[in-house]
Amino acid sequence: MALHKKIPLYQRFADQLATSIRAGVLQPGERVTSVRIASQQHKVSVTTVVRAYELLESRGIIESQPQSGYFVRQTSKPGDLRKSPPSAAESRQSSEVDVSRLVLATLKTIQQDGKIPLASPYPNPALFPTARISQYAGKIMRDVVQTSVFDDLPPGHPDLLRQIARRYLETGMNVGPEEIVITIGATEAINLCLQAVAKPGDTIAVETPTFYAMLHAIERLGMRALEIPTDPHTGIDIDALAERLKTQPVAACMVMPNFQNPLGFQMPDSHKQRLVELAGQYDLPLIEDAVYSELHYGSAHPTSLKSYDTKGLVLHCSSFSKSLTSAYRVGWAMPGRYRAQVEKLKFLNTLSTPTVPQRAIAEYLTKGGYERHLRRVRRHLAQQRDLMRHFVLRFFPAGTRVSEPEGGYILWLELPATVDAMELYRRCLDVGITIAPGRIFAASNRYSHFIRLNYSYAWTAEIEQALKTIAGITAGLM
Amino acid sequence: MALHKKIPLYQRFADQLATSIRAGVLQPGERVTSVRIASQQHKVSVTTVVRAYELLESRGIIESQPQSGYFVRQTSKPGDLRKSPPSAAESRQSSEVDVSRLVLATLKTIQQDGKIPLASPYPNPALFPTARISQYAGKIMRDVVQTSVFDDLPPGHPDLLRQIARRYLETGMNVGPEEIVITIGATEAINLCLQAVAKPGDTIAVETPTFYAMLHAIERLGMRALEIPTDPHTGIDIDALAERLKTQPVAACMVMPNFQNPLGFQMPDSHKQRLVELAGQYDLPLIEDAVYSELHYGSAHPTSLKSYDTKGLVLHCSSFSKSLTSAYRVGWAMPGRYRAQVEKLKFLNTLSTPTVPQRAIAEYLTKGGYERHLRRVRRHLAQQRDLMRHFVLRFFPAGTRVSEPEGGYILWLELPATVDAMELYRRCLDVGITIAPGRIFAASNRYSHFIRLNYSYAWTAEIEQALKTIAGITAGLM
Repeated sequence: MALHKKIPLYQRFADQLATSIRAGVLQPGERVTSVRIASQQHKVSVTTVVRAYELLESRGIIESQPQSGYFVRQTSKPGDLRKSPPSAAESRQSSEVDVSRLVLATLKTIQQDGKIPLASPYPNPALFPTARISQYAGKIMRDVVQTSVFDDLPPGHPDLLRQIARRYLETGMNVGPEEIVITIGATEAINLCLQAVAKPGDTIAVETPTFYAMLHAIERLGMRALEIPTDPHTGIDIDALAERLKTQPVAACMVMPNFQNPLGFQMPDSHKQRLVELAGQYDLPLIEDAVYSELHYGSAHPTSLKSYDTKGLVLHCSSFSKSLTSAYRVGWAMPGRYRAQVEKLKFLNTLSTPTVPQRAIAEYLTKGGYERHLRRVRRHLAQQRDLMRHFVLRFFPAGTRVSEPEGGYILWLELPATVDAMELYRRCLDVGITIAPGRIFAASNRYSHFIRLNYSYAWTAEIEQALKTIAGITAGLM
Repeated sequence: MALHKKIPLYQRFADQLATSIRAGVLQPGERVTSVRIASQQHKVSVTTVVRAYELLESRGIIESQPQSGYFVRQTSKPGDLRKSPPSAAESRQSSEVDVSRLVLATLKTIQQDGKIPLASPYPNPALFPTARISQYAGKIMRDVVQTSVFDDLPPGHPDLLRQIARRYLETGMNVGPEEIVITIGATEAINLCLQAVAKPGDTIAVETPTFYAMLHAIERLGMRALEIPTDPHTGIDIDALAERLKTQPVAACMVMPNFQNPLGFQMPDSHKQRLVELAGQYDLPLIEDAVYSELHYGSAHPTSLKSYDTKGLVLHCSSFSKSLTSAYRVGWAMPGRYRAQVEKLKFLNTLSTPTVPQRAIAEYLTKGGYERHLRRVRRHLAQQRDLMRHFVLRFFPAGTRVSEPEGGYILWLELPATVDAMELYRRCLDVGITIAPGRIFAASNRYSHFIRLNYSYAWTAEIEQALKTIAGITAGLM
């Protein structure tokens, strides 16, 4: 494709600047010329400069500092980047959020270079029955030539609403189709739910570490994140949250109670119940991200916060993207007492979710086989977890600690405290391996010696070799 | 479907209340019990009450007043609802926006009852080559079983980006694929562009009347609308806008320069150029909605604001939903100097736009035939405009004035000033006809004697009869 062959202006501009930096024209820590001045000096558009700087940032050559612009990165020497572990005191203050740039840059490295996707947040698409769902979609498209936008209006297609309600019933939760609003993936569901309950400037309690989609939602709406300590086995510290609620206004709390990304825990039922009760005391909306709930390794389906909710305070968000197919981007919200606002915001945000994907998934669910598919996937993922943990513990330097996920497909690694995970991320990139650096899982500057790995892909010698390589680089950075 | 057969609680509650109102328990103008109190009194959830009130509002039995709650509607008597025409003085003040509820209610009446869709904002889907595009989609789905989310990341699929750029070139505009960000329809494009240039509380200049999607974007982000007088033939009054810019801060201006919804005008090139120059003077971002540009009746493709833009201030938004297929919800933005922000906001808002629809449309555009398809559609719509104008002028009472659209498929009617278009809307609904009431085209309470009609549907005796019926009800309301 010609598009990819010619080098765009912004990239040439970035390469020039990188050369100057390597030549020592700009020293580590020095401020890079502002976007406006650079645009004038080099007679290129502001957009070109911004994109060039973003590219250099994704390559780790410069870094942005809020409100101050771009600076040449300090080169890291072993030992000099040691961070103290997050203390309880730190989390008493809420933070502005700006992680999306780094997340998008990380995802694009996977997209552009077809690297080994250990950094991926998505499950291996080979696990999905996408071919069968696409057959249904094809048939629906042939039959319904004149799809009208009216078929797509919120809350969504009645067949899919009913099938989702039926699936909840099978997993032990009583939900009416009329409680559900279909969205573009769980991403939109979380965004709409947060916008329904809080306004710009408000403080939102999140787990720490937390899935960056939560931070994105907060960033998108100009809110602030209050990070609540979160236990790797039992989840958010409910006492710590209760303490904060006593002393400061919190507009909502966002949690992932089952197989949290990145920690992998399943909150005990007693904790789920206590959290919902606490929320009831303060009339605090709880936004629950349940996208991994179907991927449990234990025999029983985990409960959700929603099932303990008697006051309509839980806004439950989920999607089919982690359990059935990520190609269709079909998610949903069950916003409890905020349903009317969420439906309106859905209409304002993207008008509608296309009908064909909704109907194709409804057809798959009607025909049966979802539970059988899930059992196969769960078995595969549980085996993969064991393999990945085994090799990490074998290859990685002493002092490395590894999570024990009870569902999902994500492993969280704490490396020896002197290892700079951003530097590790960049060095891995140089040899064709992507990993997710810990920094993207917090609003404040934490988890600098943590990384996240995806174990959903079929086990190969290549993956094993990649783990060895990461372990070797890690040892070199200690 | 069982889902539709049982009457939901909120609907039963609404029916009870409607009976009380008809029985005179509550009189016109009286306040309806507040949501909270009603919930306690009737032992139903707050959500049930809210949905019941919304239903009654959509039926025209009660109406909401900002900050005050719901009131029983005044019954209209001929002559007592005369509104003075919008004066220049009124538009000096910006307004809070809350029209989406009425718009969604209007669209749902079309969806639920299969009424004659004269109220529809969408083109007749029978005009689209959807079957052919679906064939491509089917083939893509079969070939690419393992679609990965990485294929969908912003800015969008490279094939589609290139085809869109090529199409602009054919219509006389030089655009690079790298300037484009794919979105979920033009709706998301407009939302992201507005969020990229303005913040909650900011004032946004809009045409009046304006397409309600503009008002939705303003409402969604908690901004204020400043309505600028707009000429039915030449578009937004640039002198009036210049006057406002001198005296008050305006964060952006949203316009539809070609075949504006609802007026149908094509701004003269000289006006487009002046508007872009004025924006340059004030560094004012211009959000351009171009969704109807392909549907011109004249031989030349209309120019866009973007083609006069040398400073990157025009954020151009469009989609295939009005010209090729509305089933796929594929739109795009060309945000000029705000490209990086819009791409980031796209990522935050809905993560990605599914690949298959993007690739299917790209395939259609590659194979050719788009221009031939468009020529056929334009010819059809120009004929339909003449038919619809002919019958409106023949049936409607003296004093009715009709727009002369130069493209698109929408007619704007000014009825005699004593006619209450909301009452007309409701009475038409009772006999199975939907029309769009003028009130949804302004933030402030204007256009109370205007309606909008869609003429994209194939001409039938039924449509002719519907126009006669609307005309008859109109005469009765004078």
